Amino acid sequence: MYRHTRELQFTARPEKPDALFAAKFQEILGGQFGEMTVMMQYLFQGWNCRVPGKYKDMIMDIGTEEISHVEMLTVMLARLLEGAPGEATDKAAAANPALAAVLGGQNVQHAIVSGGGARPTDSLGNPWNAGYIAASGNLLTDFRSNVAAEAQSRLMTSRIANMTDDRGVKEMLAFNLARDTYHQQQWLLGIQMLIADGYVETEIEQSNGDWEDKDAAHVFYTSTNGSAAGEGLWVTGNSLVDGEPFRAEELRPLTDDDGTLPAPDPLQFVTYD
Amino acid sequence: MYRHTRELQFTARPEKPDALFAAKFQEILGGQFGEMTVMMQYLFQGWNCRVPGKYKDMIMDIGTEEISHVEMLTVMLARLLEGAPGEATDKAAAANPALAAVLGGQNVQHAIVSGGGARPTDSLGNPWNAGYIAASGNLLTDFRSNVAAEAQSRLMTSRIANMTDDRGVKEMLAFNLARDTYHQQQWLLGIQMLIADGYVETEIEQSNGDWEDKDAAHVFYTSTNGSAAGEGLWVTGNSLVDGEPFRAEELRPLTDDDGTLPAPDPLQFVTYD
Amino acid sequence: MYRHTRELQFTARPEKPDALFAAKFQEILGGQFGEMTVMMQYLFQGWNCRVPGKYKDMIMDIGTEEISHVEMLTVMLARLLEGAPGEATDKAAAANPALAAVLGGQNVQHAIVSGGGARPTDSLGNPWNAGYIAASGNLLTDFRSNVAAEAQSRLMTSRIANMTDDRGVKEMLAFNLARDTYHQQQWLLGIQMLIADGYVETEIEQSNGDWEDKDAAHVFYTSTNGSAAGEGLWVTGNSLVDGEPFRAEELRPLTDDDGTLPAPDPLQFVTYD
Amino acid sequence: MYRHTRELQFTARPEKPDALFAAKFQEILGGQFGEMTVMMQYLFQGWNCRVPGKYKDMIMDIGTEEISHVEMLTVMLARLLEGAPGEATDKAAAANPALAAVLGGQNVQHAIVSGGGARPTDSLGNPWNAGYIAASGNLLTDFRSNVAAEAQSRLMTSRIANMTDDRGVKEMLAFNLARDTYHQQQWLLGIQMLIADGYVETEIEQSNGDWEDKDAAHVFYTSTNGSAAGEGLWVTGNSLVDGEPFRAEELRPLTDDDGTLPAPDPLQFVTYD
Amino acid sequence: MYRHTRELQFTARPEKPDALFAAKFQEILGGQFGEMTVMMQYLFQGWNCRVPGKYKDMIMDIGTEEISHVEMLTVMLARLLEGAPGEATDKAAAANPALAAVLGGQNVQHAIVSGGGARPTDSLGNPWNAGYIAASGNLLTDFRSNVAAEAQSRLMTSRIANMTDDRGVKEMLAFNLARDTYHQQQWLLGIQMLIADGYVETEIEQSNGDWEDKDAAHVFYTSTNGSAAGEGLWVTGNSLVDGEPFRAEELRPLTDDDGTLPAPDPLQFVTYD
Amino acid sequence: MYRHTRELQFTARPEKPDALFAAKFQEILGGQFGEMTVMMQYLFQGWNCRVPGKYKDMIMDIGTEEISHVEMLTVMLARLLEGAPGEATDKAAAANPALAAVLGGQNVQHAIVSGGGARPTDSLGNPWNAGYIAASGNLLTDFRSNVAAEAQSRLMTSRIANMTDDRGVKEMLAFNLARDTYHQQQWLLGIQMLIADGYVETEIEQSNGDWEDKDAAHVFYTSTNGSAAGEGLWVTGNSLVDGEPFRAEELRPLTDDDGTLPAPDPLQFVTYD
Ligand SMILES: [Ca+2]
Ligand SMILES: [Ca+2]
Ligand SMILES: [Ca+2]
Ligand SMILES: [Ca+2]
Ligand SMILES: [Ca+2]
Ligand SMILES: [Ca+2]
Repeated sequence: MYRHTRELQFTARPEKPDALFAAKFQEILGGQFGEMTVMMQYLFQGWNCRVPGKYKDMIMDIGTEEISHVEMLTVMLARLLEGAPGEATDKAAAANPALAAVLGGQNVQHAIVSGGGARPTDSLGNPWNAGYIAASGNLLTDFRSNVAAEAQSRLMTSRIANMTDDRGVKEMLAFNLARDTYHQQQWLLGIQMLIADGYVETEIEQSNGDWEDKDAAHVFYTSTNGSAAGEGLWVTGNSLVDGEPFRAEELRPLTDDDGTLPAPDPLQFVTYD
Repeated sequence: MYRHTRELQFTARPEKPDALFAAKFQEILGGQFGEMTVMMQYLFQGWNCRVPGKYKDMIMDIGTEEISHVEMLTVMLARLLEGAPGEATDKAAAANPALAAVLGGQNVQHAIVSGGGARPTDSLGNPWNAGYIAASGNLLTDFRSNVAAEAQSRLMTSRIANMTDDRGVKEMLAFNLARDTYHQQQWLLGIQMLIADGYVETEIEQSNGDWEDKDAAHVFYTSTNGSAAGEGLWVTGNSLVDGEPFRAEELRPLTDDDGTLPAPDPLQFVTYD
Repeated sequence: MYRHTRELQFTARPEKPDALFAAKFQEILGGQFGEMTVMMQYLFQGWNCRVPGKYKDMIMDIGTEEISHVEMLTVMLARLLEGAPGEATDKAAAANPALAAVLGGQNVQHAIVSGGGARPTDSLGNPWNAGYIAASGNLLTDFRSNVAAEAQSRLMTSRIANMTDDRGVKEMLAFNLARDTYHQQQWLLGIQMLIADGYVETEIEQSNGDWEDKDAAHVFYTSTNGSAAGEGLWVTGNSLVDGEPFRAEELRPLTDDDGTLPAPDPLQFVTYD
Repeated sequence: MYRHTRELQFTARPEKPDALFAAKFQEILGGQFGEMTVMMQYLFQGWNCRVPGKYKDMIMDIGTEEISHVEMLTVMLARLLEGAPGEATDKAAAANPALAAVLGGQNVQHAIVSGGGARPTDSLGNPWNAGYIAASGNLLTDFRSNVAAEAQSRLMTSRIANMTDDRGVKEMLAFNLARDTYHQQQWLLGIQMLIADGYVETEIEQSNGDWEDKDAAHVFYTSTNGSAAGEGLWVTGNSLVDGEPFRAEELRPLTDDDGTLPAPDPLQFVTYD
Repeated sequence: MYRHTRELQFTARPEKPDALFAAKFQEILGGQFGEMTVMMQYLFQGWNCRVPGKYKDMIMDIGTEEISHVEMLTVMLARLLEGAPGEATDKAAAANPALAAVLGGQNVQHAIVSGGGARPTDSLGNPWNAGYIAASGNLLTDFRSNVAAEAQSRLMTSRIANMTDDRGVKEMLAFNLARDTYHQQQWLLGIQMLIADGYVETEIEQSNGDWEDKDAAHVFYTSTNGSAAGEGLWVTGNSLVDGEPFRAEELRPLTDDDGTLPAPDPLQFVTYD
Repeated sequence: MYRHTRELQFTARPEKPDALFAAKFQEILGGQFGEMTVMMQYLFQGWNCRVPGKYKDMIMDIGTEEISHVEMLTVMLARLLEGAPGEATDKAAAANPALAAVLGGQNVQHAIVSGGGARPTDSLGNPWNAGYIAASGNLLTDFRSNVAAEAQSRLMTSRIANMTDDRGVKEMLAFNLARDTYHQQQWLLGIQMLIADGYVETEIEQSNGDWEDKDAAHVFYTSTNGSAAGEGLWVTGNSLVDGEPFRAEELRPLTDDDGTLPAPDPLQFVTYD
């Protein structure tokens, strides 16, 4: 069950409104790698988690913190939108180039749909959707998704931070960047613990590994003319699973199956020979 | 530029058709973590890559291999759908429970839309979409997404492999599982090389790290009653960035900002006090 | 069956073209609460309606009127787009700030995709989709959705009306605003009639009300520190269903069930303890 | 800021697993009118609310309760999925009609994607998306959406409750039904208070009402042959805004504008005369 | 403007209900190539059409007919769903294999969401969306899309017709098939008229044809080993534009540009060399 | 199986960067009728094709060429984005109207998400999705879709070509326009061959044509007042299937079925009489 506290986790107050920046800011709220994504990803992983104790509690704790991150960002957005030019016309723009830029670049749904409030969308207006999140019940693969989500999310936050000089915005983003730095490590260390606790044998997902095609697990296939890909550790190194050496091979068919398909049911009216 | 060879990379021939299994099989073709996702993810990362040499070539090579994986799966699907009961009625089902199960569980778009061919969708018919892929230009974060994608993809493949006894299907999946095992390592070793080659300092995304909130990068916040999360390495260990120790704290507001918003533009007809 | 008359329901002629305003105008055509939404919502409700006579006829009549509203808006849009700067370049923009604003803020799909015609999308280009509409077969709940749809639609129309001084646009919007005013009442009075005609007992959806948890139907749960929510009629008033008083309570678990999940099927490779 | 308590708001324990019912149950979790929708709708309305005091606190309180509802449903789903036939084949189905039904009707992503956990989707696998929610900043229109959302949500919950005899499921749904009964009233009484507190004049959204087309706000247009729609209160009654009588009229063009469009820019290659 | 007539265009009465068939039937109502698609495609093309007279009138007429087709299909669907087993349980299925098939294969949203009415979705529950339609303002390209839409739509209708023996359903589908036969020809003859009337020179879209790469307009590129593609008219025939012969060539780069990208803005944190 | 060659099919080098044009350029990469669409459409058609020899090989060859087209466009996009103003602020815009236009009109995800690389989206940021493609197994209907796709794609390419003076861009587009000219003919000639080879009887899809409603296959229905549609070949000409003359008729119900629906299952809580 959840409870709410009126105070935000961190101050979310820009020095001054900036509708153009607000349009960009939506990306880290409702984008593919925004805070809504990690919030819903961790909540679903936590609710579905079947390992009581430190793992389930940790996921529940971070899921709850992320709701608070989403809250902070919505408040920041509403304050950035204060006084946005809802009614401005192109005549006004003609007299004022800065206004012209705002008119062009602002998110018009901020004016029309949310009335100066945050939108549950990315920076181009795509509604957030659950096709962004991963929750498989397998903690190794989910933690891999979580490291990736925090890394991508942090990168977007960094890029957006470089698009403003507003000290209020930057102060909050300094907090968010730090949390993403911490959270990347949290998930990587979580993988270390899964191994230490015996839930998995290596950091590689290898279910049904007993009958996979062992040889194909050690080859890099190359098909680009003049490829230099063979110089990487993925060819010159050894397997993280069994220590055997990797090798590179030219990509070629391992079969003479040319994919010819049989005649279909005539009632399907599929063209066939 | 791309070229095509008539032979498949690996044989894609089931022992016998199975429309019910084909419906499930769609998940690893056109699902969130299916082969279409890694194919498009690596192609876009490769085309956008700004590091000529082993990195760009490696991404291009694997992107090209993944087109071949998608091809193999579509052929397998069409062969699994051979003789699927496109025209069967509920009268037939009444006399045949196994047929009844197929009638219920088959993907009806296999019969109606593709005429016994593969569909560019997941196992429940959601069309594949580009909101599944990541290509940021930053190789560290993209490689993180790639490890995660291969791990999740391998897990789904494993689960589906356990849902059939068909030796032809399993033989091909043994190859696919092995490739996913290899590819997870390829991306992890890619991150090691990025560090070795000096493109990044640590395996943690830390752009703008010079001005992030250092303290907040070392704290685990907990707010669940009786949480055991403090027992994990993410609290008892040290930072992978600067070696300083982590700590746990009770989640609490770091501000007295309660998110109060200013009065809006009256022409927006937003309710305010 | 439907028939078409060449004349529009109302004049749709702007004083002059305005591509920037046209981009915003798309919201009330193809947005979540635009005319396409009420058109499709009422058509599906009418076709599925199982109460012949005044209810079905009324829904059919308004559904038909809404097709005409969509038509009016598409004509207005095409006229607003007349002469839009399809081929203008950034050089032209440098010399003309007003043009710069248009170039930035125009909907580029108006130039590229529809060739100066209306698009079946919202103001940010999201294609209209049927996930916006409600048609449940239950007239009480559908009429509730209809009041809401007309209210939100009218608000967006009002906001957009304040973004232009064009008298031709405003004259048509004065008609649309009035229809939304009327239609809100139509659905509210429809709910009154459903009660008067004995289809429902109260204005509250209460199917299976005989076995719902009566106590939980009278409580407001609060969990925000210092919440003033208890001052509202939803706590100080009485139930619209049975006249019993409401009360406020602190949100707390009504169970000691902590959501612990059982061990899963090992073949799923879900992590468990 | 948010906090988490380990105990659920209400017990979520079915008498026994039922994978077929679990597939249906997804509708009230991640469907258009499921708990994820009201959770995100109230959270965004609360964060964007500009009326401090009882209104903002009330919205925040209910938003927080809804997170707990989503949590309860995910736990119920995971327990309904216990022992679901992840690996069953059509041979098994042939010998067991009940299993055949489950094989056909189960949500295969429960087996393949979430490993026996809840999915953030509706009953047919459509991922939840933010195009379902409304948060306009205008409390009258938002409360209208909220009444509608609770009414539709309650109806779906009622329908699903009638599809099971499981006492554990029904006990939890008796609680959910009651909350939906209460919440419908909460929003209706909220509208009464908005009038009492002077935020709006009537229960009808009428911004810019001073210049709307007054006559068109009092007419019901009919165009269906033999329509009985004129018998309703929406024709025989009086306006809820100004008390003037309504009337019915045959739908006819109020203009001779036939929507003729001007010649376009030749560089668009639009066909014109 | 539009008007409504109570009678359907054609009888829509099945001999008996069939919930399993109803699930499939949704594809030709709300699928990618269903009646909703052609209805919205022709309405938008008609409203945006800039050639008054026979072209605009023809598109308006067929658009209006398609609204009536959608209406017929929704009525058929509701009648097919009569008595669908909304409350049946797996116990009932165990005793009745035919019911088991229905339980597995029915569209559960018919029971939960629409209460036995048509849904605005395809056969797997994907909501209809406007990304299915084309309306470019260029009549040649739009008529090409229209031929394709009618052909695909007719094929799906044919496939579905073969999945039932119900004479009522087949009688209506015989009408629909015939309309699709007629409509394909209508659009092909429309293209002939565009040429006869001088709106285009050939049946090939060739805007800006004066400066396109003439040679590349006459070559078939082949890259598959052993390709027999050179035997087709597309190689052995002559251009439909200028009468010059086609030829086949091996696909090869026409440039030494290897796609190397320049160094990016360092503030983007893109990895580069 | 597929192979990669480092060189592009055609040079993709703009004279100079242009972020505003890059935003528009996305439409022909990831839009509904962009190169990603034809690439995936032809690949799926080829993989599912059941006519070995010239048809399957031809589809495979063009599918492979289209991967190369997508590659060319992504390279062009990344080069157009060189030096895009990722960090520019509204202060800068105030001093520079051309920059203001760029700031307003650029695709902000180019700066935030892809770091100056191509995005798998259209010009307004909608992610590409598989609901755009057709692959039915029936070559006649698929070739119809292919002609339409090439025609629409060519039109969009033409419109975009007119929005730039950059000679590098125009040179590549001259190649693309030519390929679309050729490909339209390839599919039309493919239809001619299907007839010549006896796979279909006419160029009209007419499966189950033996029992369709013959009369309804020869009528144009008109319902618009004063419609001139009867002047077209679709009324004055003869059937392309059987040579019989067409005729026009006033649209009218062919039945007295008014769509009245029966009473539903009471447990669905659908309102009925
Ligand atoms: Ca966060
Ligand atoms: Ca793969
Ligand atoms: Ca309206
Ligand atoms: Ca609830
Ligand atoms: Ca039709
Ligand atoms: Ca192409």
